[in-house]
Amino acid sequence: MTKLNWGMIGGGEGSQIGPAHRLGAQADGNFTLAAGALDFDPERGRAYAQRLGVAPDRAYGDWREMLAGEAARDDRVDLVTVATPNATHFEIARAFLQAGFHVLCEKPMTMTVEEGEEIVRVAKAAGRICAVNYCYSAYPMVRQMRAMVAAGEIGKVRLVVTSFSHGHHGDAGDADNPRVRWRYDPKMAGVSGQFADCGIHALHMASFVCGDEVRELSADFASTIPSRVLEDDAMVNFRMQGGTVGRLWTSSVAIGRQHGFDIQVFGETGGLRWASEQPNQVFYTPVGGRTQIMEKGEAGLSDEAARLSRVAIAHPEGFPLAVANIYVDLAAAIRGEQHGALPRAEDGLRSMAAVHAAVASARDRGAWVDARPPMFR
Amino acid sequence: MTKLNWGMIGGGEGSQIGPAHRLGAQADGNFTLAAGALDFDPERGRAYAQRLGVAPDRAYGDWREMLAGEAARDDRVDLVTVATPNATHFEIARAFLQAGFHVLCEKPMTMTVEEGEEIVRVAKAAGRICAVNYCYSAYPMVRQMRAMVAAGEIGKVRLVVTSFSHGHHGDAGDADNPRVRWRYDPKMAGVSGQFADCGIHALHMASFVCGDEVRELSADFASTIPSRVLEDDAMVNFRMQGGTVGRLWTSSVAIGRQHGFDIQVFGETGGLRWASEQPNQVFYTPVGGRTQIMEKGEAGLSDEAARLSRVAIAHPEGFPLAVANIYVDLAAAIRGEQHGALPRAEDGLRSMAAVHAAVASARDRGAWVDARPPMFR
Amino acid sequence: MTKLNWGMIGGGEGSQIGPAHRLGAQADGNFTLAAGALDFDPERGRAYAQRLGVAPDRAYGDWREMLAGEAARDDRVDLVTVATPNATHFEIARAFLQAGFHVLCEKPMTMTVEEGEEIVRVAKAAGRICAVNYCYSAYPMVRQMRAMVAAGEIGKVRLVVTSFSHGHHGDAGDADNPRVRWRYDPKMAGVSGQFADCGIHALHMASFVCGDEVRELSADFASTIPSRVLEDDAMVNFRMQGGTVGRLWTSSVAIGRQHGFDIQVFGETGGLRWASEQPNQVFYTPVGGRTQIMEKGEAGLSDEAARLSRVAIAHPEGFPLAVANIYVDLAAAIRGEQHGALPRAEDGLRSMAAVHAAVASARDRGAWVDARPPMFR
Amino acid sequence: MTKLNWGMIGGGEGSQIGPAHRLGAQADGNFTLAAGALDFDPERGRAYAQRLGVAPDRAYGDWREMLAGEAARDDRVDLVTVATPNATHFEIARAFLQAGFHVLCEKPMTMTVEEGEEIVRVAKAAGRICAVNYCYSAYPMVRQMRAMVAAGEIGKVRLVVTSFSHGHHGDAGDADNPRVRWRYDPKMAGVSGQFADCGIHALHMASFVCGDEVRELSADFASTIPSRVLEDDAMVNFRMQGGTVGRLWTSSVAIGRQHGFDIQVFGETGGLRWASEQPNQVFYTPVGGRTQIMEKGEAGLSDEAARLSRVAIAHPEGFPLAVANIYVDLAAAIRGEQHGALPRAEDGLRSMAAVHAAVASARDRGAWVDARPPMFR
Repeated sequence: MTKLNWGMIGGGEGSQIGPAHRLGAQADGNFTLAAGALDFDPERGRAYAQRLGVAPDRAYGDWREMLAGEAARDDRVDLVTVATPNATHFEIARAFLQAGFHVLCEKPMTMTVEEGEEIVRVAKAAGRICAVNYCYSAYPMVRQMRAMVAAGEIGKVRLVVTSFSHGHHGDAGDADNPRVRWRYDPKMAGVSGQFADCGIHALHMASFVCGDEVRELSADFASTIPSRVLEDDAMVNFRMQGGTVGRLWTSSVAIGRQHGFDIQVFGETGGLRWASEQPNQVFYTPVGGRTQIMEKGEAGLSDEAARLSRVAIAHPEGFPLAVANIYVDLAAAIRGEQHGALPRAEDGLRSMAAVHAAVASARDRGAWVDARPPMFR
Repeated sequence: MTKLNWGMIGGGEGSQIGPAHRLGAQADGNFTLAAGALDFDPERGRAYAQRLGVAPDRAYGDWREMLAGEAARDDRVDLVTVATPNATHFEIARAFLQAGFHVLCEKPMTMTVEEGEEIVRVAKAAGRICAVNYCYSAYPMVRQMRAMVAAGEIGKVRLVVTSFSHGHHGDAGDADNPRVRWRYDPKMAGVSGQFADCGIHALHMASFVCGDEVRELSADFASTIPSRVLEDDAMVNFRMQGGTVGRLWTSSVAIGRQHGFDIQVFGETGGLRWASEQPNQVFYTPVGGRTQIMEKGEAGLSDEAARLSRVAIAHPEGFPLAVANIYVDLAAAIRGEQHGALPRAEDGLRSMAAVHAAVASARDRGAWVDARPPMFR
Repeated sequence: MTKLNWGMIGGGEGSQIGPAHRLGAQADGNFTLAAGALDFDPERGRAYAQRLGVAPDRAYGDWREMLAGEAARDDRVDLVTVATPNATHFEIARAFLQAGFHVLCEKPMTMTVEEGEEIVRVAKAAGRICAVNYCYSAYPMVRQMRAMVAAGEIGKVRLVVTSFSHGHHGDAGDADNPRVRWRYDPKMAGVSGQFADCGIHALHMASFVCGDEVRELSADFASTIPSRVLEDDAMVNFRMQGGTVGRLWTSSVAIGRQHGFDIQVFGETGGLRWASEQPNQVFYTPVGGRTQIMEKGEAGLSDEAARLSRVAIAHPEGFPLAVANIYVDLAAAIRGEQHGALPRAEDGLRSMAAVHAAVASARDRGAWVDARPPMFR
Repeated sequence: MTKLNWGMIGGGEGSQIGPAHRLGAQADGNFTLAAGALDFDPERGRAYAQRLGVAPDRAYGDWREMLAGEAARDDRVDLVTVATPNATHFEIARAFLQAGFHVLCEKPMTMTVEEGEEIVRVAKAAGRICAVNYCYSAYPMVRQMRAMVAAGEIGKVRLVVTSFSHGHHGDAGDADNPRVRWRYDPKMAGVSGQFADCGIHALHMASFVCGDEVRELSADFASTIPSRVLEDDAMVNFRMQGGTVGRLWTSSVAIGRQHGFDIQVFGETGGLRWASEQPNQVFYTPVGGRTQIMEKGEAGLSDEAARLSRVAIAHPEGFPLAVANIYVDLAAAIRGEQHGALPRAEDGLRSMAAVHAAVASARDRGAWVDARPPMFR
């Protein structure tokens, strides 16, 4: 099994997401970092790439240079990860897809619904994978929940309740900190703050676990720190195609919550609960029965959960290995092998449609709005 | 300190709430059960009262008989607890208040806003206490949260998030069980199911801890079991008088949640978290700091928390003693002594206004509705 | 059902244990506080008893006065609770038993094994109950564990692991505080500090849940604060009659543990886990299966667990109601009704034998010592 | 920064520990798998190594072949990981050290104390690193505890309490399973079962966090499943050089515990608590204060904790990354850079001395035994 060549755009020195991708891509030996345009400062990017072991001629100054350089090579990279500022994802992902590269795009995939639809069309036309890094979906026990729902183990899903609420932007004195401020400034963040940043992870999770899509929604947004234009707290009620009722709360001012991403799924014959801070367990309750603690690595889990577990039961596996599982599935997909439910451009598009629907609803005092991308209606 | 005489209406043999009231009233030696009309079957009620030690002439067949009998005595009961079916609370509470008795009424205090306003007026005119059994507010650590918020320890409250969601009505096969069915039948339960049953506890808790009142709300109701007319799941967004944003989720189909009543309060300088299944702890996080586990009984708590704790730190105290604390405060109020923040008729009225506002909002697809009783606008 | 008359010795104003007993005895309406010798200061004791509603002629100045007074009455108290300083338990309990009263004695029942044996003999000869307040054994979910073990649901018990470790004596600066110091001073506390204070609760719990008795033990004692003569930390390994291996750790310098009393029981076909800070749950794992969370109040629990639960599932019940359950069982026993497994003088004696065995073992560097009282060998 | 060449002995297809090492070595891009003798079946080992990307001439049939081959190369591997059956560790590690290779040895490093002393001498003479895979010590929050203790943040350590108890060998019906049976058979496992397998992790952890070494111990061993010759449950009391009291419980029949490895450290001015199933938090309690939840990634942690964290606060990091941190430190040590507290041959030796001391003590009914290796007395 030869290694695949991998290229990265963004994720340079000092970035948070870069190391997670490099660990994720390399952990299982599937990918070699063969090319990169890692920094908006060309020289810094070239130097850092070489320090990471990239050959000098593949340590590029920017993504256009990388596109031209790689497209011209026989040993071109098999996969490009796009981890640049949000507003640039669309242009870069589109260009690489059109040139025949597989792409893993950080979220949000695009800033508008129209861009999202274009990515879907381009990926389809090019016959290339455009994956989106909804990495929480690659935790073994999240796959386990999805498998249990799909197998009918909790019956028809009546209700899904999810939240992604933290308190790291709760200090008003810190609101002018540039690392925080941009997220609430429409010039930089677009139409939505916290919902576009964290809420869409929770919304994707709800769809992913339920195996269903959001049809319509009603949103209540709040900017609890007055200087913020965009919302730092949002509640979104929704209905899925199959009738499931949804409740999603997201906040960045929930002081004391560190990484409060969790999901509860309630069906006709059982309930499931999972939390990202304790990702190796699922709490499962059959109707009328006791709550059972399911453990990653226990006997009898679904194929997907077993395939994506790396060490024995009760040896915790964490966030970086969830990212790595996305790369495991990508490697399999690129090689034409069987793989799990990779989040794709269609999911990135649905998120963007939901963001714009939520903004419209919140502006209209909670009016119910169609959350589907036009191309999927 | 002589004991007070106490009478009970409802709460007969086999009822769930009766034993909790008797334990609550007697635990601290404040009250003696001196009279009762405990059952809708007069003979059963009289017999049971006598088995509980009530003198034969004060073991009444119904509440009217008890009202007449007690009103005529010199040693009439000091307090009457009303624990009858919901639709009868109004008539009984009003009659006893008008006759000069103090009353503790089970929730919901009334079925309509108009009735609620009348109870407020009658209690005021009679100069008598009409308390409502929002007993969760009497847990020591709930009083502690209230004291911390009042003292500004978390700054201005930006956001309160509460839920009261269980799964005990999640079995569709059990939906015809009379003990469950009536709650979702408007003929018996009125305009609201789960929100009126459990949601109002959470709404009262939000007001109680924040020291503020709900001004307007937007609701999304769902009947996830199709045979139900009234909602078994509800999400209510609200705003308080002082601008605090509120989120309240209540459900009876959340299979796996046993008694999922909890509250999170987020202010400018800190956050608080409490859950009714672990009622002796509060999780407190100062902004930028670590989460601290506060324990009932620890040194330095507020006067109210200390006053209502009975045993040393980390010896858990549970639900029956929260009910008992309501009686502790009632005894003090009746004796003219200092006491804590007893939930009163005004709170019962506000709950009823919120229930009707939520129903109106849900019917109007989430329109924002004034949640205040007309008399408080 | 007439109320029983109850008398109390010790537990005066300001004591910790007094209120717990009064609440426990009165909560269910079984007992009326009819007599008391509550304080070592006769006048204070008489005054306080009257404030608690005791008639002046039964508000005694000391226990001898009370013994004489009550023995002479037709309506003498049915039960005497002994909550005086440890060294006085023996003399008082013996005297009341000999005079024909039922007794509930605080732990430790006596200071020596010989005294313990005498109490057993006296109680037997008098035909009276001498119960010991191992109140943790009266939690519903502790009774549930005992019932499960007895029914063979976890098979033969191989191993029991228990601890009762807190940190409330961990401040060396506080070591001279008289409320702390006496516990480590042999003049006041006898031969053992922490093991005699808390360890015997854990040892009783192990016997109670397993339905077996300790045969021999090996102890390691430490005085981690040098000024202490008696141990503030102890580890005791033991073997039960039936071969079960036991491990017991107790400490008062475990800073951060508030009330760390827990037990784990491991049998051939399953394991059980319970912790006193979360007393309403038991974690049960069948061999090869998932851990199940058992809840007080759930359907299908043992008769004993159901009988001693007062409110519905997931409404927590705490320490004072465990004490109250001891009084429930006492009332039933006094009335000749069926009741649960009340801890008796035999249990108090076994504790004292274990304390002295542990002290002997610790002095002999962990030698294994017979832990049984001579009269039971 | 060029990559280091890495070789592996053992850890072939289907092994549990192999993937953890490969992920650990490769995750951060420090090491390339350049050589291997992965299987006791030479052909399978060669084939598997090549599938993992090892060049055919460095895919060896056994460790002797690998030693000869690598010793002869200019680009010889920089590090050899020994993950073979326990009884072979000594011979292989010694041979590679003597030939000038750095070695990472799985635990237990040797089977006897004499072998352990020889490894220490050989490593010293060769000037090469012999690390031992006590990987739990490389969790960021374990390093944090060590740093806090070293900085005196909890004062002098009075007491350390640790356990490593699981229930995966609790099924007697499974006792003949060869994967389980060998651990309790002295022919294969040596003098100790569960203590040598898991207990030494806990013992190392105690030393690592306290920055102290075990001086003497007293052990109680039990074979709770009668067919087992070696212990499946053990309690070890110990004293450290500095006087700290230690308590260590290890079991493989604790049904319901999945991976119950935890440690509590109690000092003069505070307490710390950590559990391997929730490895990203430490619970810290200053004496007289509240318990604080410390989070991996929070501001203000020690340099070591910060250096070994990979993703932001509350994004969990798990067991495989603890192993990876061992490799991070190894890479730094090999390159002559600063690194953390790598467990070394001296630690492996101390473990072996403790195992033999515990066996001797258990055979002598808990007699206290010197636990130090002769060369360190």
